[in-house]
Amino acid sequence: MTETLTHPTTPLAVGDDVADLLFRAARTTSLWTDEPVTDEQLTSAWDLAKFGPTAMNTLPLRVLVLRSGEARERLVAHMGGNNKDRVANAPVSLVLAADPAFHQHLDTLFPAYPGMKDQLEPAADVREQMARNNALIQAGYLIVGLRAAGLAAGPMNGMDFAGVDTEFFGESGWKSFLVINVGHAEGEGSPYPRAPRLSFDEVAQVL
Amino acid sequence: MTETLTHPTTPLAVGDDVADLLFRAARTTSLWTDEPVTDEQLTSAWDLAKFGPTAMNTLPLRVLVLRSGEARERLVAHMGGNNKDRVANAPVSLVLAADPAFHQHLDTLFPAYPGMKDQLEPAADVREQMARNNALIQAGYLIVGLRAAGLAAGPMNGMDFAGVDTEFFGESGWKSFLVINVGHAEGEGSPYPRAPRLSFDEVAQVL
Repeated sequence: MTETLTHPTTPLAVGDDVADLLFRAARTTSLWTDEPVTDEQLTSAWDLAKFGPTAMNTLPLRVLVLRSGEARERLVAHMGGNNKDRVANAPVSLVLAADPAFHQHLDTLFPAYPGMKDQLEPAADVREQMARNNALIQAGYLIVGLRAAGLAAGPMNGMDFAGVDTEFFGESGWKSFLVINVGHAEGEGSPYPRAPRLSFDEVAQVL
Repeated sequence: MTETLTHPTTPLAVGDDVADLLFRAARTTSLWTDEPVTDEQLTSAWDLAKFGPTAMNTLPLRVLVLRSGEARERLVAHMGGNNKDRVANAPVSLVLAADPAFHQHLDTLFPAYPGMKDQLEPAADVREQMARNNALIQAGYLIVGLRAAGLAAGPMNGMDFAGVDTEFFGESGWKSFLVINVGHAEGEGSPYPRAPRLSFDEVAQVL
């Protein structure tokens, strides 16, 4: 875990403890303690993540919280390979989905343009793409928010999304795109060493 | 700004100052001070965001940093409406893009499956979708990372993405999906009151 010892070249606006908790020491978790996850903890995570910016404040991310054994088995059936066990063994699993009907809330969420709801109503393809794009960005906020709320996150996308949508979202029309197992990490939360990352020089160009 | 006064129902794992800095008081910024943004600050933000999880550790997000007046004018030409002025007035603008050739790094980034690079080589459509999905999630990490590095972020997506790709990414094949203006906020950073958010009860179902 040499990466967690990397010192920033300039001081951060948060302490090393926070940088470690949210990013540097946090791992995709698959090893869990027995400590339960409360609805209050999930709400606290959301009450951070909800403030992350989205296009026109659309906030299209939706979350299905699977707690009961019966509900979790319904999800396991659609997970691929090792992800079946990962869902079965997690304290709680969240199915993250994008809501193409997000525009129904725009009179409230985006009062600056009162006509946007009606303008988007007939544009189903545009809404579906906007919902997906912005819900994916919100997934990044939520993973950080879960950690800030003291929870560990194990995101996965090896699954049959169409099967999940039929199983859970036939009425709502939500479109699943990620599952996040949530709980409290046992040790580092992962049996694997942390994989390398690309440096800023490797991902950035400056003009 | 009543939302910033919302108290979580359970204690967070970070202090109120951190919760405010990263989420509750942070705004999509369009009002900037003259304070410059250093490459070291951008590197520090990346050195947090890079640890956020992506599928198979693909890390497909790429960042074009536009500093010079000439380079910034090239971007302004492809921005829509008011976003032209927003780019022109920002200290630095980042063009976020997804790299469909991310698989070139997988022998290093995902050593658990040595054959993945070759397996993905002929699957251009799969790579493009994987790149976009995971780069969008990374955009969420980066926005939080910029704030943790003491910077303010103003993300925008009203622009001609195809035009930007032709302008800047003809050789690399990167696919732009977001522009983030970066700097130090003047006051709250926004002339507008914060828009409402959806509560957890409004976005979540529990089974």
